[in-house]
Amino acid sequence: MADDSIVSWLTASQTALGPTADSLDWLTETAARTWMRTEKTSLEELDGWVVDADTGNLHHHTGRFFSVQGLSVRAPGATVPAWDQPIIDQPEIGILGILARDFDGVPHFLLQAKNEPGNPSGVQLSPTVQATRSNYTRVHRGRSIPYLEYFQGALGAKVLVDTRQSEQGAWFFRKRNRNMVIEVGAEVEAIDGFRWFTLGELAELLTVPDLVNMDARTVLACLPSPAAGTGSGPLAAALRRSVDPWETGAVHTLAEVLSWITEVRTRTDVDTTLRPLAGLTDWLLTDGRIARPDRRYFSVVGVDVEAGGREVAAWSQPMLEPVGTGVVAFLVRDIGGVLHVLTHARTEPGYTDTTELAPTVQCVPETYDHLPRRPRFLDEVLSTRRVRFDNSFAEEGGRFLGARNRYLIAETDTELDPADPEYRWLTVGQLDQLLCHSFYVNIQARTLLLCLRTLL
Amino acid sequence: MADDSIVSWLTASQTALGPTADSLDWLTETAARTWMRTEKTSLEELDGWVVDADTGNLHHHTGRFFSVQGLSVRAPGATVPAWDQPIIDQPEIGILGILARDFDGVPHFLLQAKNEPGNPSGVQLSPTVQATRSNYTRVHRGRSIPYLEYFQGALGAKVLVDTRQSEQGAWFFRKRNRNMVIEVGAEVEAIDGFRWFTLGELAELLTVPDLVNMDARTVLACLPSPAAGTGSGPLAAALRRSVDPWETGAVHTLAEVLSWITEVRTRTDVDTTLRPLAGLTDWLLTDGRIARPDRRYFSVVGVDVEAGGREVAAWSQPMLEPVGTGVVAFLVRDIGGVLHVLTHARTEPGYTDTTELAPTVQCVPETYDHLPRRPRFLDEVLSTRRVRFDNSFAEEGGRFLGARNRYLIAETDTELDPADPEYRWLTVGQLDQLLCHSFYVNIQARTLLLCLRTLL
Repeated sequence: MADDSIVSWLTASQTALGPTADSLDWLTETAARTWMRTEKTSLEELDGWVVDADTGNLHHHTGRFFSVQGLSVRAPGATVPAWDQPIIDQPEIGILGILARDFDGVPHFLLQAKNEPGNPSGVQLSPTVQATRSNYTRVHRGRSIPYLEYFQGALGAKVLVDTRQSEQGAWFFRKRNRNMVIEVGAEVEAIDGFRWFTLGELAELLTVPDLVNMDARTVLACLPSPAAGTGSGPLAAALRRSVDPWETGAVHTLAEVLSWITEVRTRTDVDTTLRPLAGLTDWLLTDGRIARPDRRYFSVVGVDVEAGGREVAAWSQPMLEPVGTGVVAFLVRDIGGVLHVLTHARTEPGYTDTTELAPTVQCVPETYDHLPRRPRFLDEVLSTRRVRFDNSFAEEGGRFLGARNRYLIAETDTELDPADPEYRWLTVGQLDQLLCHSFYVNIQARTLLLCLRTLL
Repeated sequence: MADDSIVSWLTASQTALGPTADSLDWLTETAARTWMRTEKTSLEELDGWVVDADTGNLHHHTGRFFSVQGLSVRAPGATVPAWDQPIIDQPEIGILGILARDFDGVPHFLLQAKNEPGNPSGVQLSPTVQATRSNYTRVHRGRSIPYLEYFQGALGAKVLVDTRQSEQGAWFFRKRNRNMVIEVGAEVEAIDGFRWFTLGELAELLTVPDLVNMDARTVLACLPSPAAGTGSGPLAAALRRSVDPWETGAVHTLAEVLSWITEVRTRTDVDTTLRPLAGLTDWLLTDGRIARPDRRYFSVVGVDVEAGGREVAAWSQPMLEPVGTGVVAFLVRDIGGVLHVLTHARTEPGYTDTTELAPTVQCVPETYDHLPRRPRFLDEVLSTRRVRFDNSFAEEGGRFLGARNRYLIAETDTELDPADPEYRWLTVGQLDQLLCHSFYVNIQARTLLLCLRTLL
């Protein structure tokens, strides 16, 4: 349960609007001083990377960073009861950390302008620190990571957020990062390439396509909701009642929600086994990439990257390149004056704990063109005129090439059986409470929760 | 957070003392109508069980129940950085369920008198239902399981507890069971072999050696703490302030405790790999059992079981037979009028999520005789005169042969560095809140928490 004083402090940040034009100018300027070139190349000719002769798995010659392996999924009783796929294995727990600092009673958050090879349109706003365990535990051979020390000595510091959270369970095998927000004092200043933002400024920047990166979104989402923002009208009013940590007016108690999650996780029978990439059903290494003959879902490609600014760097790596743009949506409804979010219990093969709470809709619509049944609520999301948030964001540009989703929030009057096996109405306050713990709220739902708070 | 009305209802149960002599008579009578014989036999001649020719793993010829496999553990930087061991693999999630019913405002809990082959002294008090997934999903060839239907239709029923919890991470590989307490109405009566108990009665029965079984203890521990009991004196007073869900007077906030758990789980680098039993370092199948040449820790043995009462049954199975009796202890301290529990962040190779909160001390002292360093706080626990609870309980008699631990609660004045990497002072209310979620509080700490509440 969030401290009341933290919630009111965050509320001051949420209502502090900033000069958005200045922020965008700063970003453009910072971006102009750096460049990055990403060129596709054959996986078999990828500098520093090895296709294992026995398994076909892809790994770095040092064994570091990550590998691409095969995964067999068996889910008896599911719509698709068995499939194979490539998956990224990156067992290390990295740090995604944002520093917070009080300026005259208003908390500001330190973000950096950062490019990644998979970003669809260059520089994005990123956390203060994005560091893998290799980065922060081994002797570093290049520059040290700015601000890292504040997240490593976190014990005893003022910790606002510190929880491991999952990432895309369809593409990562049990990947989890430590999401942290640490409050620091006036001794900490923004160095070149970094800038302090209020939540109100970030709310405006969240309406710019592909600007706030996935890592910044997941960390900011783990903060408790502010009590209010600058919104007006019935939606903002219902949303303010929804962030109430006492769950006043919630359709279900949190105990009932937890029992439902326990039931789904007990009932869901998914067996996932890492296995050699070579010989996976439906996936082949041809033309220097790993893909299905029908080209569905995604492929694994190689890229050569060159980047420059103050220093020049060049490296090569495999990336996962998805097919199509996804649709990720919350349907929300005012129930008795309290806004409720239609939440889906979603199973993905790479989740640490089987099932997490996900958006109402999360799919790439065109991948269902050949199937008899479309995902529940997709057609409502695509046809509704009651859209309250609609923007495109990119997913992790360090691993995914041009991966974009359209994130939508729309109001609905849809009814739901209270005993529906797969969906529940939750308040924002309940999602906030679950976010204090690991592996309850998936990464797409975390982005939407952050966007929903901009409507406060 | 527990509902206030549930806490006051449980408090009525805690203060309702029962005729303990009658309960013990009932148990003796019920036990007299049944019998069970357990005889050790060679693993290689175990009826229905197979020693796999390639791997040496033990499994039932049907593939059901459980298997015994090998586990390699690599924990760089730990006191023992690498070892091999046999481990029980039972991936199915079973149900451990207790029915609750209101009698004139006082909740009663339905337990059964039940024998298991590994019990050190026969019949124990067990949950209403102990069912593996094989039991409850497949067509059952024998009797149906009484009361099972109340736990399968739990959605919509009055659910007091419903959470997956771990079991012994030293002996089970990622075993977890669904712990449930469901409230039912007056239509549910105790059939032969079952009886309703108040928490007050159970508090008295928890002072009888080896009487309340492990499964009943873990499920009852998951209930929120009552607000009071029949205790008097300063310890009871400090304990009543400790169960406060608002954490008044707690040394650390729950957010700080969660950050510490995140830090430990991120820092702890344990790699566990299932591998063939045959060829494990230090473990051999000789004389029909799997053991170390030095006979330390435990062995895996075979048993033939015959049981009778209304029906007669006979079966054979492997069991894990530990060496020695363990010591499991909470040191507790009144800090500013609020009782705090000295909690250890403990890593066991079979945990689903690396590390769980454990008792101050949890070990078999004699296994340290050959080692230079004894576990922290063990000597204080063994020498203190300030013991407030001291009783012996058996562990899961369906898998472990004669496994017993001495459970102790003792007061202390010990000081702890607030940034100690491995220990923290927690209130009972904080442990209650963590018990609403999976994999935070280990099974030994759950038993001690239940015992601690008897001092309320």
